[in-house]
Amino acid sequence: MVRELTISLDGMGGDIGPSVIVAGAEIAHVRHPEIRFILFGDEAKLRAELEKSPRVADASTIVHTDVAISMDDKPSQALRRGRKTSSMWQAIDAVRDGRAQAAVSAGNTGALMAMAKVILKTLPNVERPALTAVIPTMRSESVLLDVGATIGPDEKQLVQFAVMGQAYARILFGMERPSVGLLNVGEEEMKGTESVKAAAQILRASDLPIRFHGFVEGDDIAKGTVDVVVTDGFTGNISLKTIEGTVRLLVSYLRDAMSRTIFTKIGYFFAQTAFTMLRARLDPNEHNGALFLGLNGLVVKSHGGADAAGIASAIDLAVDVASAGLVDRIAADIHLLGDVTSGAASEKSPAQEEAV
Amino acid sequence: MVRELTISLDGMGGDIGPSVIVAGAEIAHVRHPEIRFILFGDEAKLRAELEKSPRVADASTIVHTDVAISMDDKPSQALRRGRKTSSMWQAIDAVRDGRAQAAVSAGNTGALMAMAKVILKTLPNVERPALTAVIPTMRSESVLLDVGATIGPDEKQLVQFAVMGQAYARILFGMERPSVGLLNVGEEEMKGTESVKAAAQILRASDLPIRFHGFVEGDDIAKGTVDVVVTDGFTGNISLKTIEGTVRLLVSYLRDAMSRTIFTKIGYFFAQTAFTMLRARLDPNEHNGALFLGLNGLVVKSHGGADAAGIASAIDLAVDVASAGLVDRIAADIHLLGDVTSGAASEKSPAQEEAV
Repeated sequence: MVRELTISLDGMGGDIGPSVIVAGAEIAHVRHPEIRFILFGDEAKLRAELEKSPRVADASTIVHTDVAISMDDKPSQALRRGRKTSSMWQAIDAVRDGRAQAAVSAGNTGALMAMAKVILKTLPNVERPALTAVIPTMRSESVLLDVGATIGPDEKQLVQFAVMGQAYARILFGMERPSVGLLNVGEEEMKGTESVKAAAQILRASDLPIRFHGFVEGDDIAKGTVDVVVTDGFTGNISLKTIEGTVRLLVSYLRDAMSRTIFTKIGYFFAQTAFTMLRARLDPNEHNGALFLGLNGLVVKSHGGADAAGIASAIDLAVDVASAGLVDRIAADIHLLGDVTSGAASEKSPAQEEAV
Repeated sequence: MVRELTISLDGMGGDIGPSVIVAGAEIAHVRHPEIRFILFGDEAKLRAELEKSPRVADASTIVHTDVAISMDDKPSQALRRGRKTSSMWQAIDAVRDGRAQAAVSAGNTGALMAMAKVILKTLPNVERPALTAVIPTMRSESVLLDVGATIGPDEKQLVQFAVMGQAYARILFGMERPSVGLLNVGEEEMKGTESVKAAAQILRASDLPIRFHGFVEGDDIAKGTVDVVVTDGFTGNISLKTIEGTVRLLVSYLRDAMSRTIFTKIGYFFAQTAFTMLRARLDPNEHNGALFLGLNGLVVKSHGGADAAGIASAIDLAVDVASAGLVDRIAADIHLLGDVTSGAASEKSPAQEEAV
């Protein structure tokens, strides 16, 4: 890494708060000893935690904030109550004014998205931001976006998501040209919603720097058919949560089946390492960190229930995308879009609005 | 059962064709010795199979057809090529004219849906049909609809799906008042697409015979939070295939983990019955049979790759819903809707069209 990186941390976000945020920062700092933190939150609580983490204490500046956004605050409430005063707001604001290169928060998603949009604004040529998730697949991992930032995007916005997603995958997977698929109900051209069909036409016709695979279906997500799966925030959010629910169901079935007889219990005893490995592969903390794309700055959303290892994963992600200059890369790629989609100017659907 | 039931079978549908259809009918007939079949397809091929299944031979009438719809035929092709002449068309037509009480086909979904709509038409007050799936959950099973028949339904059509889904669940699960949820990106009232929000308003305000739970999220499908999950065909199709893909991914991870060391292999040996049980619970043949709802007659779609046990499950389903008089029950419940949704008359969106 060439320059010093500073990550701003919302010290009050998440189900647990300061203790797990500081412990996560400790793990991340061992892996990235060159980074610095700005910790926003209740100073007394943060100082108490830093006494257990001298590494983080040395690498951090504390900025006291009075307000903590709760996990149940509605985005509008959070904006009213937490504007300027909250740890979440100030962590994002540090990215806006250049004190930090990325913000990490385990706080509530709707509030974080609303604040990030207000503070950072979208990049030129980006109409709406997207929230990303990284999904384990048969091949390795894929990026899924949007998972809930924008409900009812039109074709231009879907194309913007494709451009943003491939820029992210290039950095995340270290690939030259990740493949991109549009999520649909079939692979044939005539299938799907109007916006999905029109987006595919733009992507097929354009000479954007995108390896466009075409349509993919729901089962292609886990297959890893493409590196980047593009969809609207409604379908993406439901798909992501459907995956989470299905994993939990299968783990519960398996636990049930393994405790059924004395033989299966013996089997469980011998196969413990296999189950530990399976658990590690499915551990949401391993894949923790959802990135908002399309904003004028980097904000990583950690799972609210993440443990220290999970927070560390989210910080790692922030370090990776910040040091690779993701925002500049997206801005450069999106710039090419100006010409591509201007021909297909379509009015915003009246049904379109945001999830927050 | 009070009256004799006849099931019409598309003898040529599916990846395998006559052999598995007849073998499946044999299994189903052991469980329902009172039912009769009309078998549509190539007479020579069907006769050869019936020699191995005297039970089915005794209970069946063969009707020779020259045309078999292929699994790759587009719906429009199938309608042109197979109108009146194909085994698929004639199996459905037998339901229209009362020779059979339900049709079962393992043929291609798009073609089956297109033909079923042309031949049977939708019930009064039903604008669009829905395709259902039955999903294993933490509690037991739930009905998910629509899984691909109607892309972009408006709020009235979503309400019709809710009514149809609960009528189906009442029969399938033997419940008085199954609970119904609308799939969304959050539980709060202000979240989601316009049509989902408007459908929730209608369902909350109405005195329809529906136990409306409110919004559910993607992970609620596997949790079994409600008995009936209602969504549009785009999201439903993608959710269903996302579940299938995730199950396959986890089974592959598990296989991988269990063959890693000598200990895990010993564990696998002892725990075999657990894995057999797990496999049975996840076996798509156990849950085989997707029903088209909202038509003037019953058509069950079997998975194209189903084995004999899978075909038998699909026939069982046809027998259950036919003997319970599902079409009449839906017609009666939907009749109540006329008043409920007429106030909220909304024009059909121009983007709306069908998946086929």
